[in-house]
Amino acid sequence: MVPEPLHDIAHLGSVELFTPRPERSLWYFRDLLGMTIVHAAGTSVYLRGYGDHAASTLKLTEAGAPGVGCVAWRATSPAALERRAAAIEAAGLGVGWSNGDFGRGRSYRFRDPDGHLMEIYYEEQRYEAPAGQRSSLKNQPQKYEGRGVGVRRSDHLALLASDVPANRRFATDLLGFQLREQVVFEHGKTEIGSWMSPTAIHHQLAYVLDVKGGHGRLHHFSLWVDNREDVLRAADILSENGIFIEAGPAKHNNSQGFYLYSYEPGGNRIEIYSGSYLVLAPDWQPVIWNEAERGTGTYWGGALPDSFIQYATPDIENGERPTKTPKLPVFF
Amino acid sequence: MVPEPLHDIAHLGSVELFTPRPERSLWYFRDLLGMTIVHAAGTSVYLRGYGDHAASTLKLTEAGAPGVGCVAWRATSPAALERRAAAIEAAGLGVGWSNGDFGRGRSYRFRDPDGHLMEIYYEEQRYEAPAGQRSSLKNQPQKYEGRGVGVRRSDHLALLASDVPANRRFATDLLGFQLREQVVFEHGKTEIGSWMSPTAIHHQLAYVLDVKGGHGRLHHFSLWVDNREDVLRAADILSENGIFIEAGPAKHNNSQGFYLYSYEPGGNRIEIYSGSYLVLAPDWQPVIWNEAERGTGTYWGGALPDSFIQYATPDIENGERPTKTPKLPVFF
Amino acid sequence: MVPEPLHDIAHLGSVELFTPRPERSLWYFRDLLGMTIVHAAGTSVYLRGYGDHAASTLKLTEAGAPGVGCVAWRATSPAALERRAAAIEAAGLGVGWSNGDFGRGRSYRFRDPDGHLMEIYYEEQRYEAPAGQRSSLKNQPQKYEGRGVGVRRSDHLALLASDVPANRRFATDLLGFQLREQVVFEHGKTEIGSWMSPTAIHHQLAYVLDVKGGHGRLHHFSLWVDNREDVLRAADILSENGIFIEAGPAKHNNSQGFYLYSYEPGGNRIEIYSGSYLVLAPDWQPVIWNEAERGTGTYWGGALPDSFIQYATPDIENGERPTKTPKLPVFF
Amino acid sequence: MVPEPLHDIAHLGSVELFTPRPERSLWYFRDLLGMTIVHAAGTSVYLRGYGDHAASTLKLTEAGAPGVGCVAWRATSPAALERRAAAIEAAGLGVGWSNGDFGRGRSYRFRDPDGHLMEIYYEEQRYEAPAGQRSSLKNQPQKYEGRGVGVRRSDHLALLASDVPANRRFATDLLGFQLREQVVFEHGKTEIGSWMSPTAIHHQLAYVLDVKGGHGRLHHFSLWVDNREDVLRAADILSENGIFIEAGPAKHNNSQGFYLYSYEPGGNRIEIYSGSYLVLAPDWQPVIWNEAERGTGTYWGGALPDSFIQYATPDIENGERPTKTPKLPVFF
Repeated sequence: MVPEPLHDIAHLGSVELFTPRPERSLWYFRDLLGMTIVHAAGTSVYLRGYGDHAASTLKLTEAGAPGVGCVAWRATSPAALERRAAAIEAAGLGVGWSNGDFGRGRSYRFRDPDGHLMEIYYEEQRYEAPAGQRSSLKNQPQKYEGRGVGVRRSDHLALLASDVPANRRFATDLLGFQLREQVVFEHGKTEIGSWMSPTAIHHQLAYVLDVKGGHGRLHHFSLWVDNREDVLRAADILSENGIFIEAGPAKHNNSQGFYLYSYEPGGNRIEIYSGSYLVLAPDWQPVIWNEAERGTGTYWGGALPDSFIQYATPDIENGERPTKTPKLPVFF
Repeated sequence: MVPEPLHDIAHLGSVELFTPRPERSLWYFRDLLGMTIVHAAGTSVYLRGYGDHAASTLKLTEAGAPGVGCVAWRATSPAALERRAAAIEAAGLGVGWSNGDFGRGRSYRFRDPDGHLMEIYYEEQRYEAPAGQRSSLKNQPQKYEGRGVGVRRSDHLALLASDVPANRRFATDLLGFQLREQVVFEHGKTEIGSWMSPTAIHHQLAYVLDVKGGHGRLHHFSLWVDNREDVLRAADILSENGIFIEAGPAKHNNSQGFYLYSYEPGGNRIEIYSGSYLVLAPDWQPVIWNEAERGTGTYWGGALPDSFIQYATPDIENGERPTKTPKLPVFF
Repeated sequence: MVPEPLHDIAHLGSVELFTPRPERSLWYFRDLLGMTIVHAAGTSVYLRGYGDHAASTLKLTEAGAPGVGCVAWRATSPAALERRAAAIEAAGLGVGWSNGDFGRGRSYRFRDPDGHLMEIYYEEQRYEAPAGQRSSLKNQPQKYEGRGVGVRRSDHLALLASDVPANRRFATDLLGFQLREQVVFEHGKTEIGSWMSPTAIHHQLAYVLDVKGGHGRLHHFSLWVDNREDVLRAADILSENGIFIEAGPAKHNNSQGFYLYSYEPGGNRIEIYSGSYLVLAPDWQPVIWNEAERGTGTYWGGALPDSFIQYATPDIENGERPTKTPKLPVFF
Repeated sequence: MVPEPLHDIAHLGSVELFTPRPERSLWYFRDLLGMTIVHAAGTSVYLRGYGDHAASTLKLTEAGAPGVGCVAWRATSPAALERRAAAIEAAGLGVGWSNGDFGRGRSYRFRDPDGHLMEIYYEEQRYEAPAGQRSSLKNQPQKYEGRGVGVRRSDHLALLASDVPANRRFATDLLGFQLREQVVFEHGKTEIGSWMSPTAIHHQLAYVLDVKGGHGRLHHFSLWVDNREDVLRAADILSENGIFIEAGPAKHNNSQGFYLYSYEPGGNRIEIYSGSYLVLAPDWQPVIWNEAERGTGTYWGGALPDSFIQYATPDIENGERPTKTPKLPVFF
């Protein structure tokens, strides 16, 4: 008997990032990545990509250390919001109702098993561009300004978790996400990571093993551009502006994403992303990679460096992040 | 009170095209577009793009004239299939159950109000590549061979209809598709076209006014490539092989699709397509274009020619299709 | 007996454009195309692309009407400069020596047979970027800022001429340019255009028939970007900023250039350009196109419009230039 | 007193590669890279890219070990050929006149100081495509077939030399190449590599230090594609066909080339290449990189691996070449 899929979560709504260097972080997201500031309140600034449907998809909040704040998911209907709130509360993970963040109606807050703060909401203000920001395309919420990278929209985020299976089950069972890919080592015994999504987008949430045993940490937040060439251009722009590129441009084997990882000045790992593939099948069978198949995580292009495993935000060990590629004795 | 969205249709499954020149049509889809033949039965050949999840997404059937055969939609569950079959039958549009086409379980057949044959199915064989066709990417169903254009997957189709509103209501109300964009002329009185989708893909079905008053006709079938550069390369390949390009490469205003339209040798209009944008909002408000806003249908690049309105398959008037761009007195 | 090719001209040095709207022209070149202002003197402003070797390749001068001022060519050596000056003077086309424009040594000025003002110089200041404009690439003269289109360098210009053969002979015989392609109508009797170059770049100078019988007019000035995708992105940027696109993005048949033509606000036609091909053969045989082969001048993409022949700067007839694509009755 | 530049060499004509696995090497160049076989004689096969002007630019010769055979340069005129032959003979490097290889007139053969065999010729058959291979573009020597990578033309080669300065002086003084970039270590004392060209192409010949003290060895031969996206597509094609990618797709700092290095099955390192920049200045000042500036040789993208220094053809030490990326303990 094939169960009916749950369709209560519509998509990733927004991600809050903490930054100890708010001015420099803003420079990174606005001037280099080309996002737009739409609102400010308290120590938070709200940003968006030119193609984001909602008013804001990134909330940047001043804090003592980098990391992830609240991750917001949009429900598919008011009833779906109520259903999810009830199920999460019954599972003992609930925090409670809040009045809703900028541009949104009330939300139900909770924590995933690893402790990351999340919320679900339904009501959302669609972005209405002010005069100078209107696009000449009626179906584009905002003018494409041609400033910096010009990221189009938010795509996904990856969280670290000390217990990946528990968090993966939470996402599939309580949120209804479809499991897309997994990395499982030691003959199926050690689940290293799971990639999941409530939409046709390959993944909007990944849980990956926290090798340092931390809790509530962020691996990366990812922003979309339409073409692989846009990712290459982003590498030129980051390089010209002194931003250390941790990895890429290169192609992942799992997800097939064409990636470019850098750290925004506050310390959070940000991905500029294109490619990958859509999943539409209701009976999708997760693709599972073992040690040999997974290899370096790269299909082609430079292998992911050790920092890709060791560094996350907040950094719980040394407070240092890599700032340049180790120099090898390569001279031509 | 916000209604809950219907999630009974998962995605476009496959499209059957009729061709009076099966050998030449096969050459176009296999050698120029880079699709793979997976099966043959009777006068039909089944093809796929390297990234299609199912065994086949295009069925090419020999016939006296070009046009569209059966359009198949996949249900999200067995129960969803039953629900849709019951609703369509109750609406008086049902044809009845069939045993299912290649690689599929039983399907419920019906006709849309304009008379196009359609079906819904749930059970589907996932594509398993034979030895020589396996990809080095575990999550890619088939090797990317680098032959011709290399279309990745089917994307959408556009059908003509003499009564666009009736067919649009059928798709939204009975199939549960979300209405994404519309072209409406004469102060809201004349609905020229409606673009709809059961997925995050911008549209998987469009109904556009049949200006010749025909029924059951095809405007175009569209295949996806990942980057705009792939569409440009496709223009080079089609041009080198004597295929008349009707329009593009250029960018639509509605859908923002980056398009290239040509006729396969059987006479059907085929689009090679990238760009566009995903829609995830459960309360998406359709973008409606009037005469002035719609203009030539092109955001930039050459305007769509008159044949784009006048020609469809089967051609009910003159049996002729354009084979070259009208020569203007332009000489440098 | 094969003659030895002449190598006295090294490359196109710079182009001066007249504009009746200097503020708006500056906005176009600086904010939309991403060029940098390096100098101002009198009513002129000097600009450059981030990859231009010399300090400036575009001089923008306020004037009553648009058009082309002085076209400067760099000699390969001081002796080559003297040789060309003597030969041009002997041909009766000389104007005389000048002290040299911004960043350059003395130059020899002359007029081509059609009356366009030109000069040859040898000494040239290499661009040295100020602190904030230095690239992180030691071999790149200036930072790639990621502002607007980001044109890399000047590429070529096309001039109108009432007598194409006379001007073509001038360029090949007196300047030593290699003839690359020609459009010749009426069984070889009417030379419509000739494309020539002193470098491996396909053409740096074209003469095309002035159908209105004018003299000294400009057809277009062309700026280079590295990839076809950059031209597509340029189309997005121009469209978002209300700049009328006259033609493209599309691919020329002659030159194979991937083009995008727009008018800068002063009225001059500007091309954003990539693709084409290099010519290295010392015995290159010109490719000659007749009426049938030339067709619309477009290999694929929208045909060149009538204005592409009728409009040039200064406009000697109606003072009007097209501002929008004629609306065809195309509605989907 | 500025000397007049020497213009006796027009461009790189062709490169001969030795392969111990001729069948597999042919598969690589023809089926994966998309080159065309135009001729065969003895144990040699002659190939070309679709945009190469001459009949052949790559000669593949069966041999016991991989490596480079004769490197041919085209003179700018018959007189230039005589001048270069006389100068090289006077320098004691001459081998003597030969009757010329396929499609060419007589050539003067010689060895560079490191011992690589070279020749200069002037007469050359322009490629005339047979019926099925004609392009729909009159200015393109051959149809773009859309098979595999589709390299357009040969670009450059890099040779190892035990004494880089001696070989660099040979190329600049005797062949007249312009010095474009250098890597010089130890405060100017150790010349690691020099990049030179007789054309506007950034470099057509590089000499790089042979760290194993060999002679006459090849570092890599490079083939051009028009867009960076074509290099990415090439990485997909090589990966799908089990070809080990040694480095890239990534961007060099020196030359700015966007590169992809793999080994053809015979063992020679082949680069698929785009980007870089043209040099037109007659007084170009070489860009010189020291240890710190040179770093890993990569501007962005994965660093060049150790094999990039250690491995060349013929391999004089271990007869082994890398076949896979070292596995790092990176697991997500």
